[in-house]
Amino acid sequence: MPLTDLSLDELVQYRPDLPGPQDFDAFWDRTLTEARAAGGVVEVDRVTDHLLRTVDVDDVRFPGWNGEPVAAWLMRPRGVEGPLPVVVSFIGYSGGRGLPTDHLLWPSAGYAQLVVDSRGQGHDTPDRDPGGPQWVKGFMTRGIDSPENYYYRRLMTDCVRAVDAVAELPGLDGERVIAAGGSQGGGLALAVAGLTRVAAVMPDVPFLCHYRRAAEMCGEGPYQELAEYLRWHSRHLVEPAFATLSYFDGVHFAQRATAPALFSVGLMDPICPPSTVYAAFNRYAGDDRTMTVWPFADHGGGYGSNPVAQLEWLHDRGLGVS
Amino acid sequence: MPLTDLSLDELVQYRPDLPGPQDFDAFWDRTLTEARAAGGVVEVDRVTDHLLRTVDVDDVRFPGWNGEPVAAWLMRPRGVEGPLPVVVSFIGYSGGRGLPTDHLLWPSAGYAQLVVDSRGQGHDTPDRDPGGPQWVKGFMTRGIDSPENYYYRRLMTDCVRAVDAVAELPGLDGERVIAAGGSQGGGLALAVAGLTRVAAVMPDVPFLCHYRRAAEMCGEGPYQELAEYLRWHSRHLVEPAFATLSYFDGVHFAQRATAPALFSVGLMDPICPPSTVYAAFNRYAGDDRTMTVWPFADHGGGYGSNPVAQLEWLHDRGLGVS
Amino acid sequence: MPLTDLSLDELVQYRPDLPGPQDFDAFWDRTLTEARAAGGVVEVDRVTDHLLRTVDVDDVRFPGWNGEPVAAWLMRPRGVEGPLPVVVSFIGYSGGRGLPTDHLLWPSAGYAQLVVDSRGQGHDTPDRDPGGPQWVKGFMTRGIDSPENYYYRRLMTDCVRAVDAVAELPGLDGERVIAAGGSQGGGLALAVAGLTRVAAVMPDVPFLCHYRRAAEMCGEGPYQELAEYLRWHSRHLVEPAFATLSYFDGVHFAQRATAPALFSVGLMDPICPPSTVYAAFNRYAGDDRTMTVWPFADHGGGYGSNPVAQLEWLHDRGLGVS
Amino acid sequence: MPLTDLSLDELVQYRPDLPGPQDFDAFWDRTLTEARAAGGVVEVDRVTDHLLRTVDVDDVRFPGWNGEPVAAWLMRPRGVEGPLPVVVSFIGYSGGRGLPTDHLLWPSAGYAQLVVDSRGQGHDTPDRDPGGPQWVKGFMTRGIDSPENYYYRRLMTDCVRAVDAVAELPGLDGERVIAAGGSQGGGLALAVAGLTRVAAVMPDVPFLCHYRRAAEMCGEGPYQELAEYLRWHSRHLVEPAFATLSYFDGVHFAQRATAPALFSVGLMDPICPPSTVYAAFNRYAGDDRTMTVWPFADHGGGYGSNPVAQLEWLHDRGLGVS
Amino acid sequence: MPLTDLSLDELVQYRPDLPGPQDFDAFWDRTLTEARAAGGVVEVDRVTDHLLRTVDVDDVRFPGWNGEPVAAWLMRPRGVEGPLPVVVSFIGYSGGRGLPTDHLLWPSAGYAQLVVDSRGQGHDTPDRDPGGPQWVKGFMTRGIDSPENYYYRRLMTDCVRAVDAVAELPGLDGERVIAAGGSQGGGLALAVAGLTRVAAVMPDVPFLCHYRRAAEMCGEGPYQELAEYLRWHSRHLVEPAFATLSYFDGVHFAQRATAPALFSVGLMDPICPPSTVYAAFNRYAGDDRTMTVWPFADHGGGYGSNPVAQLEWLHDRGLGVS
Amino acid sequence: MPLTDLSLDELVQYRPDLPGPQDFDAFWDRTLTEARAAGGVVEVDRVTDHLLRTVDVDDVRFPGWNGEPVAAWLMRPRGVEGPLPVVVSFIGYSGGRGLPTDHLLWPSAGYAQLVVDSRGQGHDTPDRDPGGPQWVKGFMTRGIDSPENYYYRRLMTDCVRAVDAVAELPGLDGERVIAAGGSQGGGLALAVAGLTRVAAVMPDVPFLCHYRRAAEMCGEGPYQELAEYLRWHSRHLVEPAFATLSYFDGVHFAQRATAPALFSVGLMDPICPPSTVYAAFNRYAGDDRTMTVWPFADHGGGYGSNPVAQLEWLHDRGLGVS
Repeated sequence: MPLTDLSLDELVQYRPDLPGPQDFDAFWDRTLTEARAAGGVVEVDRVTDHLLRTVDVDDVRFPGWNGEPVAAWLMRPRGVEGPLPVVVSFIGYSGGRGLPTDHLLWPSAGYAQLVVDSRGQGHDTPDRDPGGPQWVKGFMTRGIDSPENYYYRRLMTDCVRAVDAVAELPGLDGERVIAAGGSQGGGLALAVAGLTRVAAVMPDVPFLCHYRRAAEMCGEGPYQELAEYLRWHSRHLVEPAFATLSYFDGVHFAQRATAPALFSVGLMDPICPPSTVYAAFNRYAGDDRTMTVWPFADHGGGYGSNPVAQLEWLHDRGLGVS
Repeated sequence: MPLTDLSLDELVQYRPDLPGPQDFDAFWDRTLTEARAAGGVVEVDRVTDHLLRTVDVDDVRFPGWNGEPVAAWLMRPRGVEGPLPVVVSFIGYSGGRGLPTDHLLWPSAGYAQLVVDSRGQGHDTPDRDPGGPQWVKGFMTRGIDSPENYYYRRLMTDCVRAVDAVAELPGLDGERVIAAGGSQGGGLALAVAGLTRVAAVMPDVPFLCHYRRAAEMCGEGPYQELAEYLRWHSRHLVEPAFATLSYFDGVHFAQRATAPALFSVGLMDPICPPSTVYAAFNRYAGDDRTMTVWPFADHGGGYGSNPVAQLEWLHDRGLGVS
Repeated sequence: MPLTDLSLDELVQYRPDLPGPQDFDAFWDRTLTEARAAGGVVEVDRVTDHLLRTVDVDDVRFPGWNGEPVAAWLMRPRGVEGPLPVVVSFIGYSGGRGLPTDHLLWPSAGYAQLVVDSRGQGHDTPDRDPGGPQWVKGFMTRGIDSPENYYYRRLMTDCVRAVDAVAELPGLDGERVIAAGGSQGGGLALAVAGLTRVAAVMPDVPFLCHYRRAAEMCGEGPYQELAEYLRWHSRHLVEPAFATLSYFDGVHFAQRATAPALFSVGLMDPICPPSTVYAAFNRYAGDDRTMTVWPFADHGGGYGSNPVAQLEWLHDRGLGVS
Repeated sequence: MPLTDLSLDELVQYRPDLPGPQDFDAFWDRTLTEARAAGGVVEVDRVTDHLLRTVDVDDVRFPGWNGEPVAAWLMRPRGVEGPLPVVVSFIGYSGGRGLPTDHLLWPSAGYAQLVVDSRGQGHDTPDRDPGGPQWVKGFMTRGIDSPENYYYRRLMTDCVRAVDAVAELPGLDGERVIAAGGSQGGGLALAVAGLTRVAAVMPDVPFLCHYRRAAEMCGEGPYQELAEYLRWHSRHLVEPAFATLSYFDGVHFAQRATAPALFSVGLMDPICPPSTVYAAFNRYAGDDRTMTVWPFADHGGGYGSNPVAQLEWLHDRGLGVS
Repeated sequence: MPLTDLSLDELVQYRPDLPGPQDFDAFWDRTLTEARAAGGVVEVDRVTDHLLRTVDVDDVRFPGWNGEPVAAWLMRPRGVEGPLPVVVSFIGYSGGRGLPTDHLLWPSAGYAQLVVDSRGQGHDTPDRDPGGPQWVKGFMTRGIDSPENYYYRRLMTDCVRAVDAVAELPGLDGERVIAAGGSQGGGLALAVAGLTRVAAVMPDVPFLCHYRRAAEMCGEGPYQELAEYLRWHSRHLVEPAFATLSYFDGVHFAQRATAPALFSVGLMDPICPPSTVYAAFNRYAGDDRTMTVWPFADHGGGYGSNPVAQLEWLHDRGLGVS
Repeated sequence: MPLTDLSLDELVQYRPDLPGPQDFDAFWDRTLTEARAAGGVVEVDRVTDHLLRTVDVDDVRFPGWNGEPVAAWLMRPRGVEGPLPVVVSFIGYSGGRGLPTDHLLWPSAGYAQLVVDSRGQGHDTPDRDPGGPQWVKGFMTRGIDSPENYYYRRLMTDCVRAVDAVAELPGLDGERVIAAGGSQGGGLALAVAGLTRVAAVMPDVPFLCHYRRAAEMCGEGPYQELAEYLRWHSRHLVEPAFATLSYFDGVHFAQRATAPALFSVGLMDPICPPSTVYAAFNRYAGDDRTMTVWPFADHGGGYGSNPVAQLEWLHDRGLGVS
């Protein structure tokens, strides 16, 4: 597999001029204010039928967009008193929170982790339609006719509300909330960092950045859903679609985010092209930002080496477990 | 491209044992009864801003599932008094009714044509969600958790209700209603023929037949959405998914359909494997059934030759234009 | 599918320096003069066995290169007195004039249409060889050893002679002849516009432009026949081959064409790369030239939306049907 | 690459029932009689500008179909008196006789070799059209409308006439003429063995056998030209096309050939499927027939190991160089 | 992705007749006796620089083939007294033991895990050559000229010796040793179960079974190395290669293994075809054998669902953590 | 297939700044001195069981790296007294010296040829491991941890020692030694020209040049082994790997080579990208250097035309056969 994008020298300089919508902040203020106003409670049920011995698992429901209940797993090292630093993590495209056994890294390292379901993409959190939350594809164009209707408005709001929910969960340290995730999860983490206060953000090979370039470059992965949609609706709808997407672009969230940030990128990533990752990274507002470059990696990025880099990076910033 | 399935000799003998759900008829009776009870009116607006000269175009809304308004184009030869035979046609996957200029064959041949939008797949007919009807993919698994919730329950009901709407449209001959379509449109036409009375049905390279075999065989096309979904949810959900799909299988509609039928199939079709088409055809209940075999065709089937075959076939049965 | 070529900003500036052969005009003058001198008659037979009701179809033979009879369909709205504007249309690679039912748009919109067969590529017009006109591939290199022998010399001459034939056909308006076609048909339309007088030209995703770049860029489609040929004959024949092709390059026809022109291009077209389309468009001699850009389209260009754009464009120029 | 066809156990038993045309022999008798009656002379010119030292090269023209001059190279070991056994060899699809340096095996082993050009496919032997003999593709459907017009009628006649020409060439042993070739060359060798007397035939991974199965099975290679043609002309022309091809099928030539035969086959060959090779081999009329099976080979068959096997096989039959 | 092999009905009946070498047992007795006689010590070093909190990690070297030191990680739940059940796990093709953070499932579930490096494939265990243990590919043919020299003789011996080493490691329960792994790791686990005593074996989508069929079927993955090798060495070496491989075939190990066994298989696995997995499973000698079928899975098998199934299966057999 | 790299205009200017290691010369002096000091004898055995008549074949063993015996074929025109010019030729990746019948060009043209086996890649020359010399892949990363251990240190030393061995072989002209080969063989020829005295060098489509760019660009071929290795070991090992490779880079050998040189390149080569070939060519130290450009060629370069160009080039320089 060859490099999929610009050279590294070009990437570190890549700063395309992408003006966001003028009412970007107003749009999100209104959206989040309404969501928080919708109320709802955080519910926590201890899961007892799993076979793990070193971690405790809670099945959580917290109020997301429109106050709708969003599923999450709360994982933490068994028998450890808090308050613990907590990684609020988001999931890649076309998947939900999965099983507790999929999420052992952070609790094994002494952190709590809140694994947030993606509405509509899994089993436990429906998106709007009371019947049938399971979907394979299609989220990229869901409601793309307006920012209000766009699917990611609801999902990103859920993610911000997940951070809000941390305060309701016992034994967590609200000063050490770390937003994280890979691919779609990375794009969501970045949105969260731009929309609310977190102690750190770690977007790996993030999706949901610089949509137009991505839609023009990708030969595989979910950005292609945009290209396919625009192929068939290109007479009138190209600019309106990108106008909608501009409210959800990681580039604009990055410009508003100040928490210490650890990005990662694979220079042979065909799913989330490196230039789209750097478009966000190079505009990131916080001073403490680091890019872990995996020069021969595909969309898997650093694979098993990446968590080690993240653990060390958090430890260096006093956000880890003492 | 090679043959994608069994040999022709095997196909004409292919009659897999696929028992349908016991309450298949009850399910559909209830579904259609409820839809018809939901009421709604047929609205017809003459389109005047197109540039066609030999056809008239009406923009129609008829009541579909739950009485929800479904868009359609009514195309007919200009200046011809009726009552005209009418082709009620359905659309392939990931597309709506498109533009009037896409639908010139039938009115040019003297027929009326009602081009039915596919809810959620186009611009003009939303599916459940008031915001954002445009979708690229994902319909195959939408609501697959139960027959009640499954997307095709709503879409197939719309299609039956399109035939109902013919009686409300002026100048059409209710005794000469022909259900037709290719790919998804062919699967929908077959469903209509199994669920209501039509004078003829012409499913071309039909989709939505023998889902399990299709999901096991296809390397491209929308049946893969099933396989992908089941890959990620295979622990508990394989049999429930196929249980849902059995209510929407062309094989079972074929067993209940008696109108004269003209199927077509491409023996090199990788999207709708020939055996899945024959699985329906070989169970078709009507005596007057014909398969047009395009032995070297892909999913395009007979391409431009197919309409000629259809015109002649309808003409031979007295369903054409005198 | 990603962009296949330069960015749109680069494309609109793309003006490669491609000097044509010095005797280009002399070559074509001689070629056309000889063809016209070869004589031959236009024959028109009404087709009566089709099943269309709103259009009339004539089976035409007109004298093409060397006076050889070339097949065409003349389509027109039934019962409409002329003189009608007429679209002379050419066909894509590896196909002939097809069936009348393939060509309903223009007569439905009130135009006459002359659908010109491509010699050797279909059933009805042999190329040189009295036996066996059907061919799948290979035309790109047929006679490439000299401009005199090259296949497209004969086919382009046929196309010019099709315009000549309009004057012989009853009910057509010789002042409103529009050359049109997609892909190979677009390249032929452009050649016609450079070689004879037409009222307008509409080349969609045109083929046969800037052969060298195309042969160097394309990973699919018929330009590859050039690359494959030159791979095996590269010791001595690369420059002679391009010397031959320079007499048939849309870039040079464009420089000689002045009729109002409506091009289209798909920026993700892997068959006819956008830069080769713009290489012709940016050199087009007429002032009234428009490019319809389909930014996410493959070689299908605007699909069903394109005819609407063409109808409106013609209407705006007074070339349509009143 | 996986096996592309039946298992070896199945292949050795594979004897499909493929009746040839009743007038097969009459057709070929007439064809060859006419060709021989057309006359023409064999011309031999010593090539002096090559840089080889151990072989002599003659540039030959012999009369082929319709007496037309066909090019060949005559290669022989320098300074060796004859009479020499001679390998008459034919070329793969889309290529001509190439360069003398491409053909060193047989003269290095002490044989003469006559390397026969394929009309139209190279530079030196045009097919029907006086201008422009170079073609990349398209021969499979050239003249497929009738056996009389089909391209391979002319090429196969050339090949038989090449064997006739051996008698006119000095220093060759007319009792030790060996027809040989790979792929298309193998199919031609087999045709020659069925149509005239040779001392041995060695078809490697032969093409031009059991066309229908090949057209139905192949996803790459020239048999696909048939499938593509039939896709677009499938309404009326499938059976006529195969009727034409039945006059040129290696299965029928094999049934008439009695010379000792050494076939080869690659069981992972995607271009010439093993079953089509065995369809000919299993019907081969001569008792002395051997199949060299390369069980993991693609269309390259035995690559460099195959000539060794051929040299040994010829040597064992007393056809080699003492 | 379609099914890659036989239907499930056929798979459960698939019992090809694959006689192993007569001296199979003698070969392995001699091999293991020699390895055990070579001596060597087990070394254990506590890793202190990782950032995990719930598990302890030891860096282990144990004596493998020829007494050579083989690297492993010993993972166990921190602060838990033993004796613990221990999963001895093996790694997939082209990878070594990786990082401790890659192996959190079993210690999190209360088990010890010994993660065995694959000689030559990672960083820490060279194979024969003192310089340069890192390899991407090529192990399938390394030493294939004889059973004595074949790479997997050395690696499988290492794996058996890993089980031997359990007795030397403190806090492990020698009566609850479970051999496990996926792909190559699954093939190694199966070899171990056939060659020494374990309490259970869990081969997931195992590699190294029924080599000939795999080499004939696979279009991707490491079995292709065999096919590629045999393509180029097919004149004399096909049968000798398979003779070598027969000493290392999971089918023959299965016939000698009696521990309770939990296999898994993906019916759409293109890397390790289901029939090769069933060829071993259907010959497995132990009565307590279970196949987890993932009907729509590729080589990933059950992904995150598989560990849950394994934990439950072990728990049911009293091999888990109380 | 499109161009795989820069345009020809860019290529001829392409001179990337690639500083070699400071101790490059010292490294190679030491390596070659040690190899020559290791001693060993040249053995020559006449091969008598082949069936060639115009060439003599000797089976040679000469001392290579560490004095280890390396296999070669010595081919020469039969019955010709020397001293003959001799082509010392090297083999492409994943293959050994093959069969004598694979190497007929040079002896047929009057040259002697020494065909050097590639250790480990064929049958006759093991690399370090006494058991099992056959390998399909993996050499690119073998011993990549240090220049001392890297596989190509040993192979390149063998190649230099092959030139040394010419002096020991009877009938060869030590003043007319020509190093040649394609792909890996071309890279080896270039290394030889940089490390010892030859009369000419002819690297065709050479491999082993500018590794980093190649590893970043190639989507097929053996450079991918580097990319794959670095994907999985990218945390610490990227720079060390390229540090090792810098001792074996054709760019640095070219800077030290002064013999007349005839390179070739295919501009559509996906295996050895043209820029990597030009990176070496543009730094070549000798004044007499020529690049044969095959503008539409893939990795096959000039195919059969290339030897003709080489024969003529050698002849023009007085290195050929009089």
